[in-house]
Amino acid sequence: MKFSIERADLVKAVAQAGSVVERRHTIPILANVQIEATPEGVSFRATDLDTEVVDKTAAHVERPGATTVSAQMLNEIARKLPDGALVTIAVDSANDRLTVQAGRSNFTLATLPTEDFPVMANAEYSANFAAAAPVLRRLFDKSKFAISNEETRYYLNGVYMHVADSEDGRVLRCVATDGHRLARIDAPLPDGAADMPGVIVPKKTVAELRKLLDDDEAQIAVSVSETKVRFATPAITLTSKVIDGTFPDYTRVIPMGNSRKMEVDAKDFARAVDRVATVSSERSRAVKLALDMDRLVLSVNAPDAGTADEELAVAYGDDALEIGFNAKYLQEIAAQVDRENAVFMFNGSGDAALIREGSDPSAVYVVMPMRV
Amino acid sequence: MKFSIERADLVKAVAQAGSVVERRHTIPILANVQIEATPEGVSFRATDLDTEVVDKTAAHVERPGATTVSAQMLNEIARKLPDGALVTIAVDSANDRLTVQAGRSNFTLATLPTEDFPVMANAEYSANFAAAAPVLRRLFDKSKFAISNEETRYYLNGVYMHVADSEDGRVLRCVATDGHRLARIDAPLPDGAADMPGVIVPKKTVAELRKLLDDDEAQIAVSVSETKVRFATPAITLTSKVIDGTFPDYTRVIPMGNSRKMEVDAKDFARAVDRVATVSSERSRAVKLALDMDRLVLSVNAPDAGTADEELAVAYGDDALEIGFNAKYLQEIAAQVDRENAVFMFNGSGDAALIREGSDPSAVYVVMPMRV
Repeated sequence: MKFSIERADLVKAVAQAGSVVERRHTIPILANVQIEATPEGVSFRATDLDTEVVDKTAAHVERPGATTVSAQMLNEIARKLPDGALVTIAVDSANDRLTVQAGRSNFTLATLPTEDFPVMANAEYSANFAAAAPVLRRLFDKSKFAISNEETRYYLNGVYMHVADSEDGRVLRCVATDGHRLARIDAPLPDGAADMPGVIVPKKTVAELRKLLDDDEAQIAVSVSETKVRFATPAITLTSKVIDGTFPDYTRVIPMGNSRKMEVDAKDFARAVDRVATVSSERSRAVKLALDMDRLVLSVNAPDAGTADEELAVAYGDDALEIGFNAKYLQEIAAQVDRENAVFMFNGSGDAALIREGSDPSAVYVVMPMRV
Repeated sequence: MKFSIERADLVKAVAQAGSVVERRHTIPILANVQIEATPEGVSFRATDLDTEVVDKTAAHVERPGATTVSAQMLNEIARKLPDGALVTIAVDSANDRLTVQAGRSNFTLATLPTEDFPVMANAEYSANFAAAAPVLRRLFDKSKFAISNEETRYYLNGVYMHVADSEDGRVLRCVATDGHRLARIDAPLPDGAADMPGVIVPKKTVAELRKLLDDDEAQIAVSVSETKVRFATPAITLTSKVIDGTFPDYTRVIPMGNSRKMEVDAKDFARAVDRVATVSSERSRAVKLALDMDRLVLSVNAPDAGTADEELAVAYGDDALEIGFNAKYLQEIAAQVDRENAVFMFNGSGDAALIREGSDPSAVYVVMPMRV
């Protein structure tokens, strides 16, 4: 194997592939990236056995071939080489070492046999469709904050991507919840997605996927089976197992009958919550919302440390109401609101609240109350 | 006590004072900042019993008085208040709580009695002098990287500031070493400093001092006794105990007879060292320097991971030499070099190297070799 590659291309490809590599692993080859040079170009593949990234890039290939080498070391070397350098990468057949050469810098790195590298088996995908990067970005960005980190509830450790019926017809929907709060985001159903099985996309895959979605113009090819999901751009293919579990029936959690409506500037609300939460101890960051005619008083009472309150002008015309929430949950939801106003729908002090972004029906958040 | 203060002034004063507060401490009042309002203004004092910062700031004082309150909480509240807010701070005499009010935000914070706050005793300073901020900045910035973190060698856990004789007469000198490398930085002796006792300024104090030195125009009033050192601007007074120990005779460590001279571009050298060190394991980051006529080859040989080498053009006219160093130490010293060229003076492979910045005699670095 021998090829030459622009340093910038190498940095990009190796960084993307390298980010799925787990720092500590008992299987040595999982620390490596697989490099395959063909007449068409070079691909870099990395895996943690659950997620696999393949990054194809242009290169001048002199001699096709393949090997595997430490992802972290290749990544560091690429980053440290000077801007604009042309990098020549080759396998020294005498000792199976990889040589990296650029300018007056020479590196030789230990390799492991490419045959031993675990390549994810191809799946039969039952649905294939294309989605614009901004659409997927919105679906996952607005839902991922609610993913549960509790390992015992493994079926909540991801975003549930599925086809659902909404008021506006069938939609592509992402839902995440940790039992305390929930996010439900809809997008128009892409052609070819109608028969897609619902899948729980693991948190790590959601994070990796995010890196494919920065380009507003990009179309992402999505493939879904019962056990796997794949997202691909022309250069990068991200394949991931999905979480083997049943996502709970989230529709039961979304309160439909809440009738007490409060409308508030989302940014002002988030900042005020942040301020009053300052005095609360870290464990119980409970904020009390006291609502009365067009007036919201946020308050926190932490017996040892102190108290805080702040008044906000809101639109509210119902009976007085006092209700408590975890400050962090309120802030995270308020941070999702892209429109100026957040609309809260309350019922009683012991009932979950529903939050919308203005009049947009395609994003719904739910947060459970806390006793204050 | 009652006063009004601009939010920006409060943020600055509390942040500066608060940074000496240790997060975890068994004495509760040490987590607090002492606030004293007098007709002249307000001062914020914080201490960890070894270091004390007092920050004076302008405020509209309605009622003089004093109290103590959580430094971290006051800091966070100040930061989170909106830009340009006028903040009113008062003690509620009914319950000894501190109230903080700005716009529609109200906070009440628990206090501890101001009488219990440990104020550092005044010392008899045997030398008082003024030094320009850039002079002190250079003395400490260029030496502090060599401070030892080994607690058992407590007398090396700081910068030794003292008066010394140099080729150019008497100087104010800062020296730090951890036994593996050493930095010796000189500045012209300020008026009034001649009789100053040599003191070891603790690492934490060096870090706090740095915040007083950003203003190029500032004159810093320095006071030194056998046990304490004080650095003061009109607004901020930093007082610190000095390390109670004897700094070793560093002059024995500085090689005077090294005659093999290598001159190299400091930035190119640092980058090349960084690159070749990539392949070495973290523990023994040994880089070999092989010198020959106007040519330097840097190399690293890490049996498990791989090898790396890079050639640099240098000015060298002596016999061939091979010598090894810790990569991190070489990089840290090269990073101090403000001039274009670093000048290395070598003796044999087993001897310490001396590094200068071009022809500047006021900064000298020493690094011990490693077997490679």
